Amino acid sequence: MQCLTARMDGSPPTLTERPDPTVPAGTDAVVVRTLRVGIDGTDHAVVTGAHGSPPTDADRIVLGHEAVGVTETPHPRLPVGSVVAPLVRRPRDADTPPRLDMAPPASVHECGIAGADGFACERFVADRRYLVAIPASLATAGILIEPLSVAHKAIDLAIAARRTVPWDPAHAVVIGNGSLGLLCTLALQEDPRVGRVSCMGRRDRPDPTISVIERLGASYLDTRETPVPSLAEAPEPPALIIEATGHAPHAFETITALAPGGVGALLGVPAVDVRELDVGRLHRELVIGNKAIVGSVNSGRAAYLQAVETLASAPPWFAESIIDTVVPPAAAPDAFTGDDTTIKTAIEFAAYEERR
Amino acid sequence: MQCLTARMDGSPPTLTERPDPTVPAGTDAVVVRTLRVGIDGTDHAVVTGAHGSPPTDADRIVLGHEAVGVTETPHPRLPVGSVVAPLVRRPRDADTPPRLDMAPPASVHECGIAGADGFACERFVADRRYLVAIPASLATAGILIEPLSVAHKAIDLAIAARRTVPWDPAHAVVIGNGSLGLLCTLALQEDPRVGRVSCMGRRDRPDPTISVIERLGASYLDTRETPVPSLAEAPEPPALIIEATGHAPHAFETITALAPGGVGALLGVPAVDVRELDVGRLHRELVIGNKAIVGSVNSGRAAYLQAVETLASAPPWFAESIIDTVVPPAAAPDAFTGDDTTIKTAIEFAAYEERR
Repeated sequence: MQCLTARMDGSPPTLTERPDPTVPAGTDAVVVRTLRVGIDGTDHAVVTGAHGSPPTDADRIVLGHEAVGVTETPHPRLPVGSVVAPLVRRPRDADTPPRLDMAPPASVHECGIAGADGFACERFVADRRYLVAIPASLATAGILIEPLSVAHKAIDLAIAARRTVPWDPAHAVVIGNGSLGLLCTLALQEDPRVGRVSCMGRRDRPDPTISVIERLGASYLDTRETPVPSLAEAPEPPALIIEATGHAPHAFETITALAPGGVGALLGVPAVDVRELDVGRLHRELVIGNKAIVGSVNSGRAAYLQAVETLASAPPWFAESIIDTVVPPAAAPDAFTGDDTTIKTAIEFAAYEERR
Repeated sequence: MQCLTARMDGSPPTLTERPDPTVPAGTDAVVVRTLRVGIDGTDHAVVTGAHGSPPTDADRIVLGHEAVGVTETPHPRLPVGSVVAPLVRRPRDADTPPRLDMAPPASVHECGIAGADGFACERFVADRRYLVAIPASLATAGILIEPLSVAHKAIDLAIAARRTVPWDPAHAVVIGNGSLGLLCTLALQEDPRVGRVSCMGRRDRPDPTISVIERLGASYLDTRETPVPSLAEAPEPPALIIEATGHAPHAFETITALAPGGVGALLGVPAVDVRELDVGRLHRELVIGNKAIVGSVNSGRAAYLQAVETLASAPPWFAESIIDTVVPPAAAPDAFTGDDTTIKTAIEFAAYEERR
């Protein structure tokens, strides 16, 4: 079968022939026929080698951690033909931490990212406990489950941090209108605990991401007119900010931008970025303002289930607007040299056909 | 009556004569005879003008926000002779926020710090809702209630931030062995949710603060041998760190020092401190490590009640070791030019005499 693999040295990913997977005897695993795999910024960082690592003793990694597929082999609790989205993390040792998504990075592998092959293959094998059954109606949109679950986990960590104090996120702001920022905007719009939502970007109208933001009922803020720190001076400073760009200055500007008592969640993974900073002022703003900053990576089954619910109840145009580019595996290597205007590329390994 | 006041321009505080306070008619207020007032770093910042503001239309502020006293006028729910510790914040407007300690700084006054006179007077008046009745056994140690409540609030905010995830603070670290750091160490030692506790400083043995740390059963770590970031490489990196120095680099080193999934609480209030920093690395550590940073200032009634419980059950030597200097009001101005070795100075306005 064909797999999209990367050498992690900056050379372009290539299609590589690998043997078809089989279920190891005595395991709880099933074979999944891949429908679609999504590409995000982390995949680009894996290709360049800026992030992640290949499996032990391998010189290439199979890419892809945002996936949706259909089970092909029987399992007592998962009928053949189930549409599934795989979790990304696997325990490195037999000793599984209680929540893989909160575990120390050194104790886990991440499929398609670090230490384990991903899902950008015609088929993959996964233990049932790492598969989440999703409605067949999400067979094409399902690649959004993983990144949407990452958004849900971050929002939940942020809200948990304010659970013991009076806190009303009447205004929430997402920094970044890439696919992750748009998914965060959707998650916040659907969250009954959150008031109005703004999403910040730096694009001119007309722009498809601005259309998505506004069709969701959120507001678009242009950071060229409204720099992140200036939110503090707005009529309604945000009590909740989700940083979804991975641009480190935004993470620290979040401290300033938050309303007193507010909380910021950081999602993006930045590179080295040395700058001169008034650390005294930022420290002071955190303390005097009772502000909190929560970093969040990966997600677990509970967040996947939230993402399924959010995506299933999202308007039908949403997933189609986000997944604006669909390519066959043969064109997947070129998808990594694509332009900046693509919101989300999906590699389609197979079309979904309902079993009768 | 005599009050310790400051012009907030760096000139030394002086004793000033003020009229004896009376209870405003139709209010819920009582007159409190001051027993003791504690001095901390914030008082020094008020004297220099680095922090806070005088009451409206006043050119001086009455100092003192850590206080204990005895009620002198009757109240239906507070018998005359009750030993009380006053809360620090007051609403600026008639519209009282639900939790003053979490309110925006602009919406509150802080007695002895910003916009309102403090308690370093022979008597003060306070509405009953801003007084916490404490056991008579804490009549001399009671000045520690306020700073200990600040420690409890910060610890609770930090623990709340991890409430929804598996998190076991088997090792907690306090940065700073000043009076606030030692009170944080006490609070953590008494907290059943927390495992072993270390407190970091930069003093040579023999030293009274190191003695307090070790008599409490905690460990002393010398930051000259164990710099804050190196905690990450320790056999048991801390899942909980309380920054109690107000030295801004420590706040950012906390991010590195935390174990994955860990949370840091910031308590100190630093000055401007511009430095070159790898903000990308810090942002990345927060995200990849699922780490959280929580700023905390001030405290409310619930935290005062926790502090009362902690202090009442602390070993008797503890408060005596922390309050190592007791001066009469006449000597109070000199207490602001004292040496660095003092842990906590108390100004004693009156000795406690039990009513019969």
